[in-house]
Amino acid sequence: MPHQLKLQFEKMITITDAEFEYVLSHFSYKKLKKHQFLVQIDDYVPNDFFVLKGLLKSYHLDENGKMYIVQFAMQDWWITDYQAFYNQNKATLHIDCLEEVEVLCLSLENREKICSELHKMEHYFRKKSNMGYVLLQQRILSFLSSNAKERYETLLILQPDLFQRVSKSLIASYLGVSRETLSRFAK
Amino acid sequence: MPHQLKLQFEKMITITDAEFEYVLSHFSYKKLKKHQFLVQIDDYVPNDFFVLKGLLKSYHLDENGKMYIVQFAMQDWWITDYQAFYNQNKATLHIDCLEEVEVLCLSLENREKICSELHKMEHYFRKKSNMGYVLLQQRILSFLSSNAKERYETLLILQPDLFQRVSKSLIASYLGVSRETLSRFAK
Repeated sequence: MPHQLKLQFEKMITITDAEFEYVLSHFSYKKLKKHQFLVQIDDYVPNDFFVLKGLLKSYHLDENGKMYIVQFAMQDWWITDYQAFYNQNKATLHIDCLEEVEVLCLSLENREKICSELHKMEHYFRKKSNMGYVLLQQRILSFLSSNAKERYETLLILQPDLFQRVSKSLIASYLGVSRETLSRFAK
Repeated sequence: MPHQLKLQFEKMITITDAEFEYVLSHFSYKKLKKHQFLVQIDDYVPNDFFVLKGLLKSYHLDENGKMYIVQFAMQDWWITDYQAFYNQNKATLHIDCLEEVEVLCLSLENREKICSELHKMEHYFRKKSNMGYVLLQQRILSFLSSNAKERYETLLILQPDLFQRVSKSLIASYLGVSRETLSRFAK
């Protein structure tokens, strides 16, 4: 059975076993319990994370403790506080585990190193970033032009798994609506 | 005086004159009048655009003709309907000119070609995409967690030029607030 990360790469590039082993040697493995933090606000963020197993959320807390969810990430997704990671700034987001989680950690230095050494890895990360950009642009458009019910229905189509694994109040926070509003149309 | 696009590349990569001339040969030049469309909804979107001069906006129109602005782009910015461009789908956005505009057009095929032939171009586009991703993520967070006044003040800090060149109603549409709400705090 090929490595889960290799299968992920092979969605966009061809990579030999030797190349993959070399790339993989730049990652480290981490296992976390439910509720444990992967990133905390004001920490430096040395790593990007590839999710092998489990489910995480990234979010901002305002001064009243209200939570705003930026992203969920499950198996085969990448997650970090990208603003902090790319710019080597302190985190403005928390990332914590909604389930027991296993991730592979890739430092910015190692990410740049493998991109520089292997053109195909630069290609993979460019393509991933392009796809992520499109998804975010669609989410922005949904904030501008869709009402809460439409945003809910779009999420239900795009990420049906999420509704089995995440509470209604977290879905509400991701959509930017109150729990009460959500329950008017979420069955 | 070096070419404007070369200066743009040189913010992230080193590129020789010969390499730059080769890359530039993959672009075509286009000049547009104020109010002219660069992209229209339901068109195919063969090109990404580098803005040499002028100002554009990309936006969605709902069934009532209400406008939702996704992006402004001025000199040295890239703009297109990326969802349509990357996936070779029909546009879901309009892009039109707020001023007289000059752009360089790069087709997806040529973009992939120069990225594949020149590792440094792949690096440039990956870095641009990473930066764009961070900006969009910050905009999403601002929709979730900031009120209209805070979003206005952030935009004023990030893009002060825009306020000299764009009407208040377009700024309101970009921020997702009514013109009336905006005028309560915009002087």
